[in-house]
Amino acid sequence: MPEQVIELLKEQHEEKPVRELNDLGIRKTERPRLVILGGGFGGLHLIRALRKQDFQVVLIDKQNHHTFQPLLYQVATSGLEADSIAYPLRKPLNAHPDCHFRMVEVTEVVPEKNLVVTNGGTLRYDYLVIATGARTNYFGMKDIERHALPMKSISDAIGIRNRLLRNYEEALLINDPEQKDQLMNVVIAGGGPTGVELAGAIAEFKKYIMPHDYPDLDVKSAKIHLIELTPELLPAMSDEASQKAEEYLRQLSVIIKTNTKIEGYDGRVVRTDAGNIPARVMLWTGGVSGAILPGLGKGLVTKKGRIKANASGRVKGYDNVFAIGDVAQIETKNYPQGHPQLASVAVQQGKFLATNLTRHIKGKELKEFHYINKGTMATVGRKKAVVDMKKWKFHGAAAWLVWLSVHLYSLVGFKNKVVTFINWAWNYFNHDRETRLIIKD
Amino acid sequence: MPEQVIELLKEQHEEKPVRELNDLGIRKTERPRLVILGGGFGGLHLIRALRKQDFQVVLIDKQNHHTFQPLLYQVATSGLEADSIAYPLRKPLNAHPDCHFRMVEVTEVVPEKNLVVTNGGTLRYDYLVIATGARTNYFGMKDIERHALPMKSISDAIGIRNRLLRNYEEALLINDPEQKDQLMNVVIAGGGPTGVELAGAIAEFKKYIMPHDYPDLDVKSAKIHLIELTPELLPAMSDEASQKAEEYLRQLSVIIKTNTKIEGYDGRVVRTDAGNIPARVMLWTGGVSGAILPGLGKGLVTKKGRIKANASGRVKGYDNVFAIGDVAQIETKNYPQGHPQLASVAVQQGKFLATNLTRHIKGKELKEFHYINKGTMATVGRKKAVVDMKKWKFHGAAAWLVWLSVHLYSLVGFKNKVVTFINWAWNYFNHDRETRLIIKD
Repeated sequence: MPEQVIELLKEQHEEKPVRELNDLGIRKTERPRLVILGGGFGGLHLIRALRKQDFQVVLIDKQNHHTFQPLLYQVATSGLEADSIAYPLRKPLNAHPDCHFRMVEVTEVVPEKNLVVTNGGTLRYDYLVIATGARTNYFGMKDIERHALPMKSISDAIGIRNRLLRNYEEALLINDPEQKDQLMNVVIAGGGPTGVELAGAIAEFKKYIMPHDYPDLDVKSAKIHLIELTPELLPAMSDEASQKAEEYLRQLSVIIKTNTKIEGYDGRVVRTDAGNIPARVMLWTGGVSGAILPGLGKGLVTKKGRIKANASGRVKGYDNVFAIGDVAQIETKNYPQGHPQLASVAVQQGKFLATNLTRHIKGKELKEFHYINKGTMATVGRKKAVVDMKKWKFHGAAAWLVWLSVHLYSLVGFKNKVVTFINWAWNYFNHDRETRLIIKD
Repeated sequence: MPEQVIELLKEQHEEKPVRELNDLGIRKTERPRLVILGGGFGGLHLIRALRKQDFQVVLIDKQNHHTFQPLLYQVATSGLEADSIAYPLRKPLNAHPDCHFRMVEVTEVVPEKNLVVTNGGTLRYDYLVIATGARTNYFGMKDIERHALPMKSISDAIGIRNRLLRNYEEALLINDPEQKDQLMNVVIAGGGPTGVELAGAIAEFKKYIMPHDYPDLDVKSAKIHLIELTPELLPAMSDEASQKAEEYLRQLSVIIKTNTKIEGYDGRVVRTDAGNIPARVMLWTGGVSGAILPGLGKGLVTKKGRIKANASGRVKGYDNVFAIGDVAQIETKNYPQGHPQLASVAVQQGKFLATNLTRHIKGKELKEFHYINKGTMATVGRKKAVVDMKKWKFHGAAAWLVWLSVHLYSLVGFKNKVVTFINWAWNYFNHDRETRLIIKD
């Protein structure tokens, strides 16, 4: 191990015992080593699109599975089994001749030394791709961070499911009307796609399942509040989509408050600038920021926590460091402020980078990324969705079928597609969701 | 609330604040109230078989779902999604006109007062059915209780899956051969059906999945030990079945140690009277005892923690208290020491008790329970199972198909059957198990 590396490590990890430069047990081969941080949409599609002989691939993630985040809200609302929207990260690597996965947490990158430092040791790279995605952003509000529930991982979604169901069970045992209100109400913070989809799914749960499941509860007294800071829901979509989503949610008795700011939450009462709402559960979909790792030059990171990269995906100032997906701000002519933080962007950037890296090691010039916006959509419930395409905006049952098809098609893994399809068919025909289980906390 | 009840509660719960006699928020109707403790096979089949107009039914369980325990081992070994072997307990109650479920923990029964005391309040009954099942029995070995993993609930099974997969991930990062051995080895304590099925499933995981998933690990060095106290595996089955199971497991390289006593476990090394085995994970299937609640007369509980009941299912000494399933020792002419602790016994006792209770409130004489033993079976792996029937014992692919069919048929819930079938078909044709996910701990 080079002396300067030892010193560097010693300096930065004085409290903890330093794991040595063990390359995480991976032997160097003749291929250039490509280290990918993160197995989300970007990382996964990059690996799948890579030519098999070009690189030694090392994928690093703190989870051992890919999470299909667009369907997390269905796990949270008892519509889908958790495992059917997750995919083991070791599987796509099986196809490559020189591939490795390590479940470790990256604590730092040292681009000057081509090093990644993790809680399992230190790893050298020839090429580094940062695809760490985004984290929940509480904008510094500590009480909200402590009491609200986020929804970024499968474990978060299961946590929400457990909490919602447990609250209804507890409400049955309580006579005090104030406490009962708190247990029955739900506040969703953030009127973007995730917030809208959560609100719709919880509202349908109350409409179709609760009257049968909880004959002893006054189900109508259970309120769902959706709070949005800006003047309309789905601010990133068309006015038509925003209005239609709002209309759908009102049909499902969701109480919508736009132009409303959440000021605090103590686990029992949500304080907003338009009054207080009693609720034992607040779901926070109010914002994200890039999952930044220590070690990159500070000027590279934007206020929203994204890494500035040029049109070829290369992080500014480095030759062999790239960034894609939610954590990256790839600046192109059409998107000088970077691209929206969507799964479709990450997928396209992953595939694009595979081509670019292959060009690079062959000495060819790097290409520029062009995002093809095929449209955006959100679903509110049964036969209720909104779709914005470039020339065509539509809603209702047709939009809902498009939404179902696109998500089923995009789900990773054939078995997951089949199991999800069966769950959806079952839920559709029976107005039922059989995964309403409180499993573990 | 009657004064003597208050006093009784005060006496017995001096530390904790006493919840009042709130009947858990359930209003008394004209129907006699039947309280069922436990939504396992016995409780669930009792409810399903009850005539709808006869009773007010109150089901109590600390979980909100039924667990199909015979398939827990497949969840533990990445073969099935957890939710597909669970079933929401509120669903079967939907069909009844006057039915109630409460997710609370029973702390005590007071049969003299027809009362059940729970952590959510106190509940009166007209008829009580104890169907609380069995708990893991460590036979007083505290260190084993602390370090070994049990497998009685879905959360236990997920815990095992997480631990097994996490150990392999960790083994990749470690060079020390002793620690690596500990991480790769698995010890299974108990050679009954659960132990045999676990050993087979883990062995197949190592054979079919690990070589692809962990190219950097020396998979062959990973050992699976199956320890049994008595001279043979599956002691409750025929000699033929025992021998065949042993043969199958040896083919899968499982190290079998019969006539061996486990003496202790510190989380790293299992001590037996035949030597030490390094292993970071020990799965304990070594025994169960009935899940007894405080409050029943002591003479009623056997050494194995089962409640003595007569042939009609009635707990000895009480008129309106019944017991079924693993917790009950229903003594009949053919089974003077009670029945084996099997799902099929609990199912039959549940159905039987529904008939008997209906007879009872109509003033008819109670019937006696007769167990129809349709056979017992265990599976070791692909096309490897053993079946003991009264006149016919067989093994191999035919037995395996019988095992698959019976379990698929017995699974509770149509959607669960379909999803399980798809998982099995997928696993069979692809030698794959896609639920190899570490989700939550």
